Amino acid sequence: MRDVAVIGIGLTKFGELWEKSFRDLITEAGIKAIEDAGISGREIDGIYVGSMSAGRFVGQEHVGALVADSAGLTGVPSTRVESACASGGLAFRQAYLAVASGIHDMVVVGGVEKMTDVVSTEATNTLATAADQEWESFFGATFPALYALIATRHMYEYGTTREQLAQVAVKNHANGALNPNAHFRRKISVDDVLNSSPVAYPLRLLDCSPVSDGAAAVILCPLKDAKKYTDKIVKIIGSGQASDTLALHSRDDICTFKSTVLASKMAYKQAKIKPKDIDVAEVHDCFTIAEILATEDLGFFKKGEGSKAVEEGLTEINGTIPINTSGGLKAKGHPVGATGVAQIAEIVMQLRGEADRRQVKDAEIGLTHNIGGSGASCAVHILEVV
Amino acid sequence: MRDVAVIGIGLTKFGELWEKSFRDLITEAGIKAIEDAGISGREIDGIYVGSMSAGRFVGQEHVGALVADSAGLTGVPSTRVESACASGGLAFRQAYLAVASGIHDMVVVGGVEKMTDVVSTEATNTLATAADQEWESFFGATFPALYALIATRHMYEYGTTREQLAQVAVKNHANGALNPNAHFRRKISVDDVLNSSPVAYPLRLLDCSPVSDGAAAVILCPLKDAKKYTDKIVKIIGSGQASDTLALHSRDDICTFKSTVLASKMAYKQAKIKPKDIDVAEVHDCFTIAEILATEDLGFFKKGEGSKAVEEGLTEINGTIPINTSGGLKAKGHPVGATGVAQIAEIVMQLRGEADRRQVKDAEIGLTHNIGGSGASCAVHILEVV
Repeated sequence: MRDVAVIGIGLTKFGELWEKSFRDLITEAGIKAIEDAGISGREIDGIYVGSMSAGRFVGQEHVGALVADSAGLTGVPSTRVESACASGGLAFRQAYLAVASGIHDMVVVGGVEKMTDVVSTEATNTLATAADQEWESFFGATFPALYALIATRHMYEYGTTREQLAQVAVKNHANGALNPNAHFRRKISVDDVLNSSPVAYPLRLLDCSPVSDGAAAVILCPLKDAKKYTDKIVKIIGSGQASDTLALHSRDDICTFKSTVLASKMAYKQAKIKPKDIDVAEVHDCFTIAEILATEDLGFFKKGEGSKAVEEGLTEINGTIPINTSGGLKAKGHPVGATGVAQIAEIVMQLRGEADRRQVKDAEIGLTHNIGGSGASCAVHILEVV
Repeated sequence: MRDVAVIGIGLTKFGELWEKSFRDLITEAGIKAIEDAGISGREIDGIYVGSMSAGRFVGQEHVGALVADSAGLTGVPSTRVESACASGGLAFRQAYLAVASGIHDMVVVGGVEKMTDVVSTEATNTLATAADQEWESFFGATFPALYALIATRHMYEYGTTREQLAQVAVKNHANGALNPNAHFRRKISVDDVLNSSPVAYPLRLLDCSPVSDGAAAVILCPLKDAKKYTDKIVKIIGSGQASDTLALHSRDDICTFKSTVLASKMAYKQAKIKPKDIDVAEVHDCFTIAEILATEDLGFFKKGEGSKAVEEGLTEINGTIPINTSGGLKAKGHPVGATGVAQIAEIVMQLRGEADRRQVKDAEIGLTHNIGGSGASCAVHILEVV
């Protein structure tokens, strides 16, 4: 297996982008990544795309072929990967493995979702296809409801408070305000969260990530070739993927996501590092409780102590382990297929020292954590600047 | 890159299977493949699944996680690949590459689609998401219409006759009659085709593959380990994948699928063989004209001579190059995500000498050809019994 580097990143703005189509978005992100890498595009011999439900959101399956065509890369093998909200993370992993194993020498990985072309109830229903259709969604369980169960249990088991949940959103909005591509760029207060519309107890509107349009792309090549293109080389040092039961009711403990634990162990082992070695992380905060679970399952804090860590400011940009400097899914936005790839782009910016007002000082090793649904799939990646 | 073998295959019956759910089908195929391989299932360390549009057909995305869960393989990395009707072929290729490169040691590849839970117009609309949504399907072009354009042009360019198209269906129904898993097991005549309902000139009902439910699965492991499990070892000797423009109107010539030409060249080159070395092939006959195109683009016949070859019986089970001994998509059925994996299963049966009344004598090398939409994606695989 060869070492692999990320040599280019591209992001569209995230938000309600009614003037841009699905293919506009992914093409824009791809071109930006190609420009950032300083390549012509003709070097690309493989394409991977993460998209959750283009079939339902925009009436377009065959997404891999669409992307190759729109990018002017007709002929190049192009593969779409779906794993609900972890589609981008899994696509990135497939691309990484393809370059690491020598199958491809220059790969672009895209992630894209165009969610606002359907009415909001249909968006919620489409997102619910990531849950167990026969045992959860058929009976009306949507994701806010499923995460509300998790939040309630975490409050019961570990004493997590309603205010601590809110503090996740407050931190991520503060970070998003510093990110020009974020869907929401306004700061909010704990009171704003506590007074926002109830969604599913204890979660309120400002505990939930939004329905967004957007795309992200990154370019991978063997590490040995990377210096031809850039002097800020970011190397992939760990990659992990795991699954879990689709339905929450099949699990022993809904306060931990086994897929996160397994995938991160795989990634840490490959990278030969410990959680404490991570300088900055983008984790999957589709709901405020999800960030708390993630920071515990990834080993940054002991189980049950993630909520206190947020309260103490440990996960802020200047904290001991800055989490979601981009604004996270909560404030940056969550175009589901794009999210996992956008996380990589944020970490690359941090490791290159290009994160501007949200820069984490001396960031050398970063982690991304992308989950599908209520954690039935997970991809974790660790990157290091070399 | 390690050599890789197929050591187990599993197929459900194809057809209108109203008593079986999406997860029933893929689990049945997976268990049959595990039994056929003589493994316990616990050896499996990777899962790939091809499915085109479970989100629209059954309201279920997150298909990889569903499959791992249903199969009792929770924890194992599970990746769903989508490439319209080539989803199964692309999933197989990803699995092959994962084993070849040493990332996984025992992989199950599944393909599945449950298409008859929606009304037939919705099935047609969902299939049309494989075409270019903005430039083809939005304006009402469905696949019968697109392939009708191709057929008309092939008739104009090469003198292909209406009767020759019908003979593809007649042959494939004759083969399907010998296949216990086929959707249609009745022989038909040229007159039956010519008198069936018109769909899109010149194509009639019996020129079209059906809307089917079904699943297929195969097990892959390194060739060096295969003899532990079976003495009828089938080795993957070539794998190719390519893309083309999504919309027909962007192509120089709609009588040839560039993706087929490119993917097969890649596979032949890796296998170090020529088209004439193939003893049996499963090709993508979603419409009768598609089989003719495929046999030309794969190099079995010169461009324009595929239709004459069918007329002369060269592609029958006892012909010079038997095509679609399973009955093909036309008669075996076409649960789109399952098709590419089912093709592999048929070729493995042929190479093992287990194809019963449809056995091709002395078959040693077989090929599968799986395309998405009107050829915007293609996967070609070549297998050899060792």
